[in-house]
Amino acid sequence: MTTGATIQERVDNVDIALDTMFLLVFGIFIYLMQAGFAFLEAGAVRSKNTVNILIKNALDSFFGGVSYWLFGYAFAYGEGNVFIGFSHFAHTGLTHTGYAHWFFQFVFAATAATIVSGAVAERCDFMAYIIYSTCVTGFIYPVVSHWAWSDGGWLSRGDIYEIDGQMVQIGYHDFAGSGVVHLLGGTVAFVGAYIIGPRLGRFDENGKPIEIRGHNIPYAALGGFILVFGFFAFNGSSSGSITKPGDEESVASAVVNTVMAASGGAFITLLLKRTHTFGDSKWSFLTTLNGSLTGMVSVCAGCHAYRTYCGFFVGLCGGLMYLFINWAVLKMQVDDPLDATAVHFGGGVVGAFAAPLLTFETGVFYNWNKASVLYLGWQVAGMIAIFLWALTLSILVFGLLKKAGILRVSEEYEMKGLDLPKHGEAAYPAEAYGHGWGDDQNTTTIRGLAKNSIGPMTTVIVVQEVPVDRPKTQEAEHPEVTALNKIRKQELLKNGPVETQPGTSDSGTWS
Amino acid sequence: MTTGATIQERVDNVDIALDTMFLLVFGIFIYLMQAGFAFLEAGAVRSKNTVNILIKNALDSFFGGVSYWLFGYAFAYGEGNVFIGFSHFAHTGLTHTGYAHWFFQFVFAATAATIVSGAVAERCDFMAYIIYSTCVTGFIYPVVSHWAWSDGGWLSRGDIYEIDGQMVQIGYHDFAGSGVVHLLGGTVAFVGAYIIGPRLGRFDENGKPIEIRGHNIPYAALGGFILVFGFFAFNGSSSGSITKPGDEESVASAVVNTVMAASGGAFITLLLKRTHTFGDSKWSFLTTLNGSLTGMVSVCAGCHAYRTYCGFFVGLCGGLMYLFINWAVLKMQVDDPLDATAVHFGGGVVGAFAAPLLTFETGVFYNWNKASVLYLGWQVAGMIAIFLWALTLSILVFGLLKKAGILRVSEEYEMKGLDLPKHGEAAYPAEAYGHGWGDDQNTTTIRGLAKNSIGPMTTVIVVQEVPVDRPKTQEAEHPEVTALNKIRKQELLKNGPVETQPGTSDSGTWS
Amino acid sequence: MTTGATIQERVDNVDIALDTMFLLVFGIFIYLMQAGFAFLEAGAVRSKNTVNILIKNALDSFFGGVSYWLFGYAFAYGEGNVFIGFSHFAHTGLTHTGYAHWFFQFVFAATAATIVSGAVAERCDFMAYIIYSTCVTGFIYPVVSHWAWSDGGWLSRGDIYEIDGQMVQIGYHDFAGSGVVHLLGGTVAFVGAYIIGPRLGRFDENGKPIEIRGHNIPYAALGGFILVFGFFAFNGSSSGSITKPGDEESVASAVVNTVMAASGGAFITLLLKRTHTFGDSKWSFLTTLNGSLTGMVSVCAGCHAYRTYCGFFVGLCGGLMYLFINWAVLKMQVDDPLDATAVHFGGGVVGAFAAPLLTFETGVFYNWNKASVLYLGWQVAGMIAIFLWALTLSILVFGLLKKAGILRVSEEYEMKGLDLPKHGEAAYPAEAYGHGWGDDQNTTTIRGLAKNSIGPMTTVIVVQEVPVDRPKTQEAEHPEVTALNKIRKQELLKNGPVETQPGTSDSGTWS
Repeated sequence: MTTGATIQERVDNVDIALDTMFLLVFGIFIYLMQAGFAFLEAGAVRSKNTVNILIKNALDSFFGGVSYWLFGYAFAYGEGNVFIGFSHFAHTGLTHTGYAHWFFQFVFAATAATIVSGAVAERCDFMAYIIYSTCVTGFIYPVVSHWAWSDGGWLSRGDIYEIDGQMVQIGYHDFAGSGVVHLLGGTVAFVGAYIIGPRLGRFDENGKPIEIRGHNIPYAALGGFILVFGFFAFNGSSSGSITKPGDEESVASAVVNTVMAASGGAFITLLLKRTHTFGDSKWSFLTTLNGSLTGMVSVCAGCHAYRTYCGFFVGLCGGLMYLFINWAVLKMQVDDPLDATAVHFGGGVVGAFAAPLLTFETGVFYNWNKASVLYLGWQVAGMIAIFLWALTLSILVFGLLKKAGILRVSEEYEMKGLDLPKHGEAAYPAEAYGHGWGDDQNTTTIRGLAKNSIGPMTTVIVVQEVPVDRPKTQEAEHPEVTALNKIRKQELLKNGPVETQPGTSDSGTWS
Repeated sequence: MTTGATIQERVDNVDIALDTMFLLVFGIFIYLMQAGFAFLEAGAVRSKNTVNILIKNALDSFFGGVSYWLFGYAFAYGEGNVFIGFSHFAHTGLTHTGYAHWFFQFVFAATAATIVSGAVAERCDFMAYIIYSTCVTGFIYPVVSHWAWSDGGWLSRGDIYEIDGQMVQIGYHDFAGSGVVHLLGGTVAFVGAYIIGPRLGRFDENGKPIEIRGHNIPYAALGGFILVFGFFAFNGSSSGSITKPGDEESVASAVVNTVMAASGGAFITLLLKRTHTFGDSKWSFLTTLNGSLTGMVSVCAGCHAYRTYCGFFVGLCGGLMYLFINWAVLKMQVDDPLDATAVHFGGGVVGAFAAPLLTFETGVFYNWNKASVLYLGWQVAGMIAIFLWALTLSILVFGLLKKAGILRVSEEYEMKGLDLPKHGEAAYPAEAYGHGWGDDQNTTTIRGLAKNSIGPMTTVIVVQEVPVDRPKTQEAEHPEVTALNKIRKQELLKNGPVETQPGTSDSGTWS
Repeated sequence: MTTGATIQERVDNVDIALDTMFLLVFGIFIYLMQAGFAFLEAGAVRSKNTVNILIKNALDSFFGGVSYWLFGYAFAYGEGNVFIGFSHFAHTGLTHTGYAHWFFQFVFAATAATIVSGAVAERCDFMAYIIYSTCVTGFIYPVVSHWAWSDGGWLSRGDIYEIDGQMVQIGYHDFAGSGVVHLLGGTVAFVGAYIIGPRLGRFDENGKPIEIRGHNIPYAALGGFILVFGFFAFNGSSSGSITKPGDEESVASAVVNTVMAASGGAFITLLLKRTHTFGDSKWSFLTTLNGSLTGMVSVCAGCHAYRTYCGFFVGLCGGLMYLFINWAVLKMQVDDPLDATAVHFGGGVVGAFAAPLLTFETGVFYNWNKASVLYLGWQVAGMIAIFLWALTLSILVFGLLKKAGILRVSEEYEMKGLDLPKHGEAAYPAEAYGHGWGDDQNTTTIRGLAKNSIGPMTTVIVVQEVPVDRPKTQEAEHPEVTALNKIRKQELLKNGPVETQPGTSDSGTWS
C-alpha cells in the first residue's frame, strides 16, 4: 500500500500488480511446457538418444532466453515498421512493466522453438540444433509475432473498410497463436524433418514406413499431462491482462474451451483408431494423446470467443486433421518422430481457419456479412504469409546447415546412439542397477546386450562383464556365480572381448 | 483499466478479476492432480498394465469434461430443487463469471472420478471404465455436490433451530470435500473393487493376501509429490473466492493445515510400521505416502477453520484410519490395488466427522452446546446420506456392467497384460532399448523373457531374437556376436520359436 | 466484496487479498522444488538406494513442517533480540495474515534442509537424517533467517553511518537467499559429506575419484525442469508482496534475471566441458544442468535489482564457481554425490558477493563511494557469519551423530543397497515386469543378476527363478520354456540356489 497515495493511484497500482502477477504466474505455467515437450519427446525416442533429446529441450529455453533478450524481443515488440521492430535490443530502454511482458512473450517464443526438436530427433547434430533453435527464437518467430501481435504489425492492423457507412478496421486475429506459434513451428518442423531425411530404417525399400517405437510411454504421458496443464495457461493468458473489462470472461472461456478442445481431439482419434477407420482397432494412448494436443493447438486462435460447443467442435476437427496430416507426412516419406507437423501445423491450420468462422456472434457461421467474410479473408492471408515466411526461412537455415555438412550426425553415431559419443552420458547406466540382496525383489537391467542389436536376427546368450571395485572376499558369498563363471568363462570369453569402446572424445570437430 | 469508470466500478472490477484469477490458477493446480493420480497408479501396477492405467487417467478429465459440461454442472449448480439442479445444461444461459466457476467445479468432479480407477486397476475393461467414469462425473458426484455445496441443497441448507431465543440455520459443512469428494469417491471405489473381484492370484486358497507389487516406486513418488502440490490448491481454494472478508485467512489456514495434516498422517503411519505395530518394522515409503495423502483428505472438511494443532491431529487420525481400513479391506478379501478405499473413504469419514468437533471456537470440543451438537448431528446425517447414495448408485452401475459381461477383461488378458491386446502399445518396448557402444555404460532390457513368467519356478536361459533392418555389413564389426551366434544358434533355436504373437486386433467386440 | 465497506476499506482488503494470493501461489510453486530435488537426487543415486532418497526428500517437508511450526518460525520471525526470536511457538498468537507468511517462510526452510540430503546420499542412516533435517529446519536455518530477514536481525539492521552529512542505515542484503538459504545449506551439506565420509569405492587407494553413476538421467532432468520452474517463484516472490510500490518491477526483474542466470550458468559449463577446458569434451547434460542451477542460486541475492546483463553475468560466474568447487571438493576427497556443495555453497558465495557489486545504480561497479563499499563490507561480514554459524552447528550435529554411531549405515547395507533392508521396498521389483504376449514388443528386466555384480569381472549366464502363483496348465502354452527348462535346469541349478535373502526385519536397532 502506498502511504499517502490517493485512492485513484492505489487502484491504478492494484491493476498493475494484478496484471503483473497474471503475466508471471501464467508465464511460469507456460514455461513448464518445456518439461512437457522434453518428456513427450524423451518417451518417443529410443533409450540410446534420450540424453540427447533432454539436453536439447533443456537448452531451448536457455539459448532462446539469450537470443530473445538480445534481439528477438526487439524484432517482435520494438518500435519499427509494419514488418519488424528494432528497439529494446538487449532490454535497452525497457520500461518497468516491460520485464513481465518480456518474460511472458519469451515463454511463447521458447515454445515455438521447442516444437522443432521433436521432428529432427535422433539424428540432428548438436551444433545444428543450437543454430536453428537460436534462429527460431531470435528471428523467425519474433518477426511473425510482430506482424500479428504488436500494435504496428501489418497483420494486426489489417486494413480499414467501409461497412454500412462506418469505417471498420479488419485484420488477422490469433488469440493464443494457432498460426503465430503452431503453424509456424509446425512448418519449420516439417522442413527440418524433410531436409534432414528419415532416420535409418524408418522406411523400407518400397517406402513403406517401419515403426520405430519410443522407449517409455509413461514419460510421454507425463509430458502430455504437463502440456495440458501448460495449455490452460498458454490459451488462458493470451489476453495479456486480467483487469481490462471483459478480460476475466476471455480468460475463463479460453480455459474452458481448452478442456473442450482437448476432449474433442481425444475422442475423435480414440474412436477412429478403435473402429479401424484409421489405425489398428486398438484404444491407442499415443494417438489419443496427440489428438488431444492437436485439439488444444486448434482452439488457440479463438478460444476466448467461442461458445463451449464450438470449442469441442474445433478440437474434433483438429483431431481429424491430425490423423490426416500424420498419414500424409508418412506418405511423403518424411520422418517426423514426434508428429510435430501433424500436431502443430495441422492444428495450427484448423485453428487459424476456425476463428473467423466460429467466433461467437461475429463469425461467418453466426453472421455472414461483409465484415465476417473480410475477416476470413485476412485470416487466410495471414496463414499463407506465416506459412511462406516459415517455409522460406527454414529452408534457408536447414539447407545451409545441410550444405555445411553439420546438420546430421554420422551414420555410425545414429545407429549406435548419440548419448555416449556426444554427451558421454547414458540415460540408464547398467552399472547403476541391481542390488546385493538376492533375487527376491529386484529388477536388474543388463548391459552387454546392446552390441547384439546390430546384426539381423541374431540369437545370443546374454553375458556381462562387471568390473566392480570391491573386496575379493565378497565373491565367496556367491558360490553360484563362481561356479557359473568356471563353466562359462572359457566357453564364452574365447569368442573375444565383448566390449567395443566409444571414443572418449570425438573427432575434434565441433559437432 | 476501464476508461471513464468510477472508482466504485473499478474496485468491483478488480474484485471480479482477482477472484477469477484465483479460481483459474488454483483450478489449474488441481487439474494437475490428474497427473498425480496417474503416476501414483502407474507406479502401483505391473508394467504390463501401465499404458492401460495411464490412458484411463488421461481420459478421466476428457470424458469428465464433456459429461460435466453437458449435464453434470446442471445437476450440481443449476436452478432446481433441494435434491438436484436442472438448468445450464451444456452451458446454456451461463453468465460471464460462470465459466470460471464451471472450470473450478469440473476439476473437483474429475478428481472424484479418478479416485475410482485405482481400485479396479489391472482388470477393469476399457468400455466399462468409460461408462462408470462418465456416470461419476456426470451424475453421482454432481448430485451430492448439489446437496452440500449449492445454495439450494438440502444438506447445505440444513434446518432452522431456535437457540437461545435466536433462529439459527444449521446444516452440513464440508469446506473442501472430505465427504462430498472423498467419502463419495472412496465408496464408489470400494464397490467397484468388491464387484469386479480381486486380481488373479491376489489371495491364496485360504484368503490370505499375496502382495502384488507395483513396478515403479519413483512414479508413485512423483504422483505423491504432485498430489501434495495439488492438495494445497484443493483445500486452499475451496472458499471459491479470495476477496470476501475473511477469505485470505481461510485460504492461508487451509494451506497451512494441509501441510500439518500431511505431516500427521505421514508420522503415525511411518511410526506404526517401523515399530512393528502395523507392518514389518521397515520405514515404508508407500505406507507413509498413503498416510500423508489420507491426512490431507481428512483435513479437507474443516481445514479453513482449524487451529494448526488440530490440523496435525486430524491428519494423525487419518493415518490411523488408513491403517485400519487397509487392514479391514484385505480381511474382506477385497482387492483395492491403490488403497483408494482406505485413503479416500477412510480419510473422508475422519474428515467429515472431525469438522464439527474441532472447528475453532464453535466445534464440540471448544463449545459443547446445542448448536455444536446439532452441527455434529447434521454432519453425521450428511455422511450417511452421501455414503448410501454412492453405495446404491455404484452397486447399480457396477452391477449392471457385470451383468452385461463387460466389467472385467478376460482371464487371458489379465494374466498376460492389458497393454498389448487392448492398446497395442507396450510401456517399455524392448526394441527401443540398448545402444551400439559396447557394454561400457549401458542398460539393456531384454525381451523374450515375459513368456517365462508364466510357469511356476522355471529356470531359463535368456535368449533374444532381434530383427533389425540394417545393412549386413554392420555385423562384421561385431565378431563376438557372430561367434556367439554360431555356437548358440543350433543349440538353442532347435527348442522351437520363442515368440508367441498377441493378436493384432482383438475379437471385434468393443472391449 | 464487503457490503457497506468504504472504498478505502475495500482497496485495503484487495491489497491484502492480492498479497496473500501472491504468497500462497508462489509458495506452492516453491514447495514443488521438493519434488525437483527428489528427482534430481533419485536420478543421481543407484537403483538400490532410490526409495531411500525419495522417502527422505518426501519427509523433509513433513518433518520440516512440524519443526518449523513448533519452533523454527518462532526463532526466525518471533519477537526477540538481534540474534533470535522467541514468540509464536506452535503458532501461538499468530495474526490472521501470519498463516500465509508462515507457509511462505516454511517452503524456504524446507528448501534449505533438502539441499543436504544429496550430499550424504547412499550412506546416511534414516534416523540420522531425521535428526539433522529437523535441526536444519527447526534451528540452524531459522536463526540465520532471523539475522538477515526479520526486521530485528543484526544483519538486516546493519549499522547507521554518516554519509555526506546524512545518517544512512547500511546492512546485509540478500533478496532471495543466496547466503541465507544456499550458502548455509551448502555449508551444512559439505560438512555432512565430509564427516560421513565417501561412499565405498568412490576413491581409489591413491585418492583418485572413481565415478559412481546415477541410475536415471531422465529423473535428473525432470528434477532440473521442476527446479527451474520453482526458482522463478523462489527468486520472484522474495519481495513477499506484490502491491507495494515497486514490487511489480522487483518481481518481474527477478524472474527475468533467473532466466538469464540459468542461461549464463548453463552456457559457461557447456562450453568449458566441450572445449576440454574442464572435463572430457562432451556436451555434458548433467554438468550443464548443475551449471544452470548454480546460476540461479547465484542470482538470488540481487535478482530484483540487476540489469539483465548483470543477471547473465552473475549466472556465468556461478557456472565457473561450480566447476571450481566441484574440482576442489573431489581434490579434498570429499564425496558429495549431488554436488550440493558446488551448486549451493559455490553459487551462494558468488551470489552474496555479487549483490553489492552489481546492484543497479548503487552497486560498487556503478557507484564507488562510501555507501557502496560499506554495503560490500556488510555483505562479506554476513557471508562469514552465516558460514561460521552453519559450519559450527553442522560439525556439532554430524559429529554427535557420528559419535553416537548412528550416522552411517553398515558396510553390508551400503554395498547391497538400502532400499530392501531399510524400507522393504525395491524401486523396481522384477516380479512386476514382463508380460505374456511373446517377445514381440516387450521389455523385461531380469532379476537374479544383482548378486553377480559383487564379484570383480565375473561373466555369467543370466538365469532366473520365477515363482508365480498360477495354474500349472499355463505352462503347456509355452512349450519352448519347458523345453529350455529341461535342458538347462540340471545343467545350471546344480550350481546351487541362486537367491540370498535379505533379512525381513533388521537388527532391532532404530536405524
